[in-house]
Amino acid sequence: MAGRNFLFVPGPTNVPDRILRAMMVSMEDHRSPTFPQLTRTILPGLKKVFRTERGTPFVFPSSGTGCWEAAITNTLSPGDTVLAARFGQFSHLWIAMCEKHGLKMEIVDVDWGTGVPVEQYAEILKKDTSHRIKAVLACHNETATGVTSDIGAVRRALDEAKHPALLFVDAVSSLGSIDFRFDDWGVDMAVSGSQKGLMLPAGLGILCASQKALDMGKHAKLARSYFDLQDMLASNATGYFPYTPALSLLYGLVESLKMIDEEGLDNIIARHAYLAEGVRAAVLNGWKMPLCAKDKQWYSNTVSAVMVPEGVNGADVISRAYNRYNVSLGAGLSKVAGKLFRIGHLGDLNEVHLMAAIAGAEMAMLDCGIKVQPGSGVAAASEYWRKHRAPVGLDASAAEAVVLPKAA
Amino acid sequence: MAGRNFLFVPGPTNVPDRILRAMMVSMEDHRSPTFPQLTRTILPGLKKVFRTERGTPFVFPSSGTGCWEAAITNTLSPGDTVLAARFGQFSHLWIAMCEKHGLKMEIVDVDWGTGVPVEQYAEILKKDTSHRIKAVLACHNETATGVTSDIGAVRRALDEAKHPALLFVDAVSSLGSIDFRFDDWGVDMAVSGSQKGLMLPAGLGILCASQKALDMGKHAKLARSYFDLQDMLASNATGYFPYTPALSLLYGLVESLKMIDEEGLDNIIARHAYLAEGVRAAVLNGWKMPLCAKDKQWYSNTVSAVMVPEGVNGADVISRAYNRYNVSLGAGLSKVAGKLFRIGHLGDLNEVHLMAAIAGAEMAMLDCGIKVQPGSGVAAASEYWRKHRAPVGLDASAAEAVVLPKAA
Amino acid sequence: MAGRNFLFVPGPTNVPDRILRAMMVSMEDHRSPTFPQLTRTILPGLKKVFRTERGTPFVFPSSGTGCWEAAITNTLSPGDTVLAARFGQFSHLWIAMCEKHGLKMEIVDVDWGTGVPVEQYAEILKKDTSHRIKAVLACHNETATGVTSDIGAVRRALDEAKHPALLFVDAVSSLGSIDFRFDDWGVDMAVSGSQKGLMLPAGLGILCASQKALDMGKHAKLARSYFDLQDMLASNATGYFPYTPALSLLYGLVESLKMIDEEGLDNIIARHAYLAEGVRAAVLNGWKMPLCAKDKQWYSNTVSAVMVPEGVNGADVISRAYNRYNVSLGAGLSKVAGKLFRIGHLGDLNEVHLMAAIAGAEMAMLDCGIKVQPGSGVAAASEYWRKHRAPVGLDASAAEAVVLPKAA
Amino acid sequence: MAGRNFLFVPGPTNVPDRILRAMMVSMEDHRSPTFPQLTRTILPGLKKVFRTERGTPFVFPSSGTGCWEAAITNTLSPGDTVLAARFGQFSHLWIAMCEKHGLKMEIVDVDWGTGVPVEQYAEILKKDTSHRIKAVLACHNETATGVTSDIGAVRRALDEAKHPALLFVDAVSSLGSIDFRFDDWGVDMAVSGSQKGLMLPAGLGILCASQKALDMGKHAKLARSYFDLQDMLASNATGYFPYTPALSLLYGLVESLKMIDEEGLDNIIARHAYLAEGVRAAVLNGWKMPLCAKDKQWYSNTVSAVMVPEGVNGADVISRAYNRYNVSLGAGLSKVAGKLFRIGHLGDLNEVHLMAAIAGAEMAMLDCGIKVQPGSGVAAASEYWRKHRAPVGLDASAAEAVVLPKAA
Repeated sequence: MAGRNFLFVPGPTNVPDRILRAMMVSMEDHRSPTFPQLTRTILPGLKKVFRTERGTPFVFPSSGTGCWEAAITNTLSPGDTVLAARFGQFSHLWIAMCEKHGLKMEIVDVDWGTGVPVEQYAEILKKDTSHRIKAVLACHNETATGVTSDIGAVRRALDEAKHPALLFVDAVSSLGSIDFRFDDWGVDMAVSGSQKGLMLPAGLGILCASQKALDMGKHAKLARSYFDLQDMLASNATGYFPYTPALSLLYGLVESLKMIDEEGLDNIIARHAYLAEGVRAAVLNGWKMPLCAKDKQWYSNTVSAVMVPEGVNGADVISRAYNRYNVSLGAGLSKVAGKLFRIGHLGDLNEVHLMAAIAGAEMAMLDCGIKVQPGSGVAAASEYWRKHRAPVGLDASAAEAVVLPKAA
Repeated sequence: MAGRNFLFVPGPTNVPDRILRAMMVSMEDHRSPTFPQLTRTILPGLKKVFRTERGTPFVFPSSGTGCWEAAITNTLSPGDTVLAARFGQFSHLWIAMCEKHGLKMEIVDVDWGTGVPVEQYAEILKKDTSHRIKAVLACHNETATGVTSDIGAVRRALDEAKHPALLFVDAVSSLGSIDFRFDDWGVDMAVSGSQKGLMLPAGLGILCASQKALDMGKHAKLARSYFDLQDMLASNATGYFPYTPALSLLYGLVESLKMIDEEGLDNIIARHAYLAEGVRAAVLNGWKMPLCAKDKQWYSNTVSAVMVPEGVNGADVISRAYNRYNVSLGAGLSKVAGKLFRIGHLGDLNEVHLMAAIAGAEMAMLDCGIKVQPGSGVAAASEYWRKHRAPVGLDASAAEAVVLPKAA
Repeated sequence: MAGRNFLFVPGPTNVPDRILRAMMVSMEDHRSPTFPQLTRTILPGLKKVFRTERGTPFVFPSSGTGCWEAAITNTLSPGDTVLAARFGQFSHLWIAMCEKHGLKMEIVDVDWGTGVPVEQYAEILKKDTSHRIKAVLACHNETATGVTSDIGAVRRALDEAKHPALLFVDAVSSLGSIDFRFDDWGVDMAVSGSQKGLMLPAGLGILCASQKALDMGKHAKLARSYFDLQDMLASNATGYFPYTPALSLLYGLVESLKMIDEEGLDNIIARHAYLAEGVRAAVLNGWKMPLCAKDKQWYSNTVSAVMVPEGVNGADVISRAYNRYNVSLGAGLSKVAGKLFRIGHLGDLNEVHLMAAIAGAEMAMLDCGIKVQPGSGVAAASEYWRKHRAPVGLDASAAEAVVLPKAA
Repeated sequence: MAGRNFLFVPGPTNVPDRILRAMMVSMEDHRSPTFPQLTRTILPGLKKVFRTERGTPFVFPSSGTGCWEAAITNTLSPGDTVLAARFGQFSHLWIAMCEKHGLKMEIVDVDWGTGVPVEQYAEILKKDTSHRIKAVLACHNETATGVTSDIGAVRRALDEAKHPALLFVDAVSSLGSIDFRFDDWGVDMAVSGSQKGLMLPAGLGILCASQKALDMGKHAKLARSYFDLQDMLASNATGYFPYTPALSLLYGLVESLKMIDEEGLDNIIARHAYLAEGVRAAVLNGWKMPLCAKDKQWYSNTVSAVMVPEGVNGADVISRAYNRYNVSLGAGLSKVAGKLFRIGHLGDLNEVHLMAAIAGAEMAMLDCGIKVQPGSGVAAASEYWRKHRAPVGLDASAAEAVVLPKAA
């Protein structure tokens, strides 16, 4: 098909040209004396992205899913109890993985469209005076529903209950996009992947572990070898990896970390918030359609899930957008299949790029019989973006913006 | 700046990933026994794009400008008379180049916003019974004003006057985008470049010459060496080039020709027309602003020049779009400087890509005080594109489009 | 440093430009309707490389190591007995992994420099009438010592003993380079990675499983989730992957499979044999130094391990080659650390490329005080390559070679 | 064919990965406010490579040939007399171009294998008291024969004769590789291209002009437009180009200039000398074959032309090397066609890379019946390179080199 595909699934995200270029490398000896420079660029860089000084980052040749496994198998033993909430396909899948490994799950099912039920967590933790619960799972950003949870509050619940359970966070679609604070929130295992906020192709699992979590490794009886953190730790300490690393992706990661550093993590987070507000303006004010996220507190700055009206299948909107307008939207998964479509707005994006998503989704909705006002999404997003101060990463003309020439 | 720059100048155009990839080649010996395969892929491929069987295509390491020079120096002698019309910066520059080479110019100045004045040409040619005029210049698509001229009509004027003058056409921003017919129109020299409809970076001058034009070379006294067609012809005949060719661009050209062949030249022309109609709907029906092109007959399917209201400087709109929204629009040049901005809509584009241009230009105009209705451009373009049959290159779902599900 | 690094570690191997280009892709929706085309190109292509019609190939975002884990965890249960031989670092590491997962290992330790002790295997299997042994490990090509084992003979030993144990083969550094026959040899699990004969960067674990092995999955009690073949099988059946696939590597794999198909697997195997003979001629006839492989039957066509004289540290040769001549050689690992250096000769190579390895290693050896005759390696390799018929992949001039002009 | 092609023609040279990467850019508006940064990086960078503070560099979308034309048409008038020496295909071609433009040539024909005949030049200039001669051509490095001339001596001849003629130098295959001094030697026009020492693909013509040469433009009557320096000068002054620049090559040039700066021009020149000595050792001491360059004073550090024995056609050696060993050698051109083959040793190269050239040429020669001692070329080059101090760009281990471990 002529023209670019416009990609707005919530991951993989658009890889910037800089990173595509950086990945185009000839192979090299991963045991050479100069190789450790690479490792020693990447690992400290990741610490900054996790906002940690005390945590230890890991990079696996795997998808993010692999790091879910790394998190649990390196810390827990069969039969251990884990507290988790289920409110979307990804919070569900991590739970399912835990069950596969023989963990005993204490599951809190809440409405899809809401997130981690902090009060219920608090109660359960308070009641668990025998510390049966060894770990608490929290999905920071549920990609399937566009819901962000308050991880700091989960930490406070643990602290208030004086509960020693480990705090495991799925930061796959939040890291590098939504404020995430490994140290401040006392996270013990944070799981992510390369293909979201890090703007790389998939292929690297990214993990950060607290010392407390690493110490648990000595007694953790779940089987592990590929994802054994001790092997990785020992190799990384000398600047190497225990098996052949995914070199091109590692070079891409170096460039990604450089880009994050240049724009500034705070600025990136502000940019994601600002862009997300524009998309939500299009959905709520322009199209006057509801989001899956049931309330402001849950709004995600990386993905918006738009509920389609009764009688319309969200899959048809997505299919129409893809086949006819070359726009890739995210589908509803599992419980919300057919009920929504998702616009990913994370990674290397700006306003007009998202205008293509808004205009494309609008055309597809109209074609599918959804009665939105043509142009309304773009008008509402434009209204938001024009009237609000753009973050540093999007405004090369901050100064001159003030003195714009005006027509008579 | 975060996010891609959205490029809508009327050249260079967006290079498709396929072509970027194809250009990433290691160097090779341009005198090797296998090299001629490359030459023999490119030259016949270009003939198809020029729609010629009788013409001879040439590829120079140069910009399109270089081929303007090749066209005249290989056919004319100092003091020869050339008929030309001036109605924009590029028709002007070719005239200026002719003057530099000592040609005597018979210039018809017409309003910028109109194109080749065929009737005036006809009259002049009829009167020139002594055949003083040796060549007629015609700018097929004046990139500076968004005006397309009727080259077939120029040929008819020559034929009706039984005038032997050569017909030289600037097809820089039309070739591969707007219907161009070298053989049918009896063109003698057609000049183009790599960075427009061929979707490559600049760096290759593309020329097509009739046998009549080549024969003129024997007596043409204008000095030439780098752009001497006889040297190029002799080398090309054996599959080689007279000097080191721009190898990476040649490999890009192979891919470009493959893409053109796959989509089909007719389909590409239809796609450009369809996309241009949507952009014009945005300008005329949505924003209710005038184009520089004074009448439908002149509308260009590769670039639209939008006149800004009195009191607003078009350069401010362009500057705002670039600095604040990362959108590159084309500027007004020379006589129309400040009076317009241009949206290029040629090359590898689709509807939502252009929506970014429309939405971006709209935001910039609003910021500069131009009173357009927010969302109106996108709504009007959407209306056009949704209601009209998309060309093959843009609709992967022709069949299923008919049975779209409808909301109750 | 100026000039290319010349990479001769036995993996990662040199990535051909074609594959580097193919990997340079924009991201796309891995759940789109067109995505399955990709999956359906890759999996059948891999079957051809494994020479299987009955086996099922798998591709994981992981290194080859991950597929070692996949092979055992999808088929075995804690306490199961596994027969394995140890004769190098990689055969050792797979054993160590099995032990980590609670398998009971029956280990045959043989000299490093020899390979799978088929007769001992045969005896053990014959004696194991109770079929205590559930799986037999065989490292097809021990990368650490440059030793190739006879996998067909292991199958015959199993058959002769009428033993039902599964046959697991490490084909990491043989697949796509040395003759490997999944169906003919009745292999049940074959493990490989992307960065050797497939000429890709590391990042994809490649596995092939027999139906018998897949059926074992129902009762296998070793924990698995990321590497669960049933999840992968279910997703692959619909053309998708259970988690975000490493897209750029998958596109690289498509190109790799196309290249393998174009040259022809038999021709590739012949090329590796022919190139390896030249390297061995340099080592044995030119330099007159011993290989680690103790006998012709063990010679590997993908890697040659050259024993350095007493008093010289192989690591110094490697270090000198790397730091001074920009040549990457493979190190001695574990038991043979310091005693040898390795020249990888697998993947996308030809004669003169290997001449750089030979000349570079020779200069480094001379600098380290090893008394080889200058030029002797190149002379001996040249002698071999000039006097033997080159395989199709290296001789574009088969016909004309016969009628070479001779000096008087 | 399997494996890389090994490219040793004296241009185009091997493009380093860094530069290939840098060239992979999306297009951008060449009239944007940020574009001048690019121009302002390139032009001062080129001044350093030309070793000039007073000269003005130019970059054209063209091959180097185009800049030959630029040099003469911007300074001379029809009928002007030009002094030139002919001793190879490239010195010949520039003369032929001058004749095409109506210049009167005073040609000194000298043996191919020698270079600019400074004494004859001196005599002629001394005798030309009427200053009929307006320009003196000197080919710094004759690529066809591997001969370097003494440009400083030509300047001295001019000065001693107090002759005001312009000094035009062809530095195509010397710039960035062999010491070239624009200011010190009082050069007026130096011509080069992107595909030699600058390590880029062909496509950029590079020129440097003195103020005296630029001033001549006012009165120079040779026709010019594409290569008009005044237009370029005016545009460049504002940071732009008069026509669409070859953007990807310009970004490649930025990276090339960065690499040159990092290694240091002096170090690069030293590296070329050191590598050339090794190649000459292979030819003269190893193979015991003569070079085309008749004497040490003419030896070129960028290309060596090896004379083949009577009865052997050099073209057969080249053809054999290409077809059978995937090695690209340079051919004999014009007068020396069939009598020699050329090894280019300029650009991004190191010792072992050249070993592939030496070993490959040797195999091809042996196949063609030339009686050289197998391995002798590599042995002689190795002897030179091992015994001489490597320049900074090739030795990452200068310090440790001293304390190499020695065998007992």
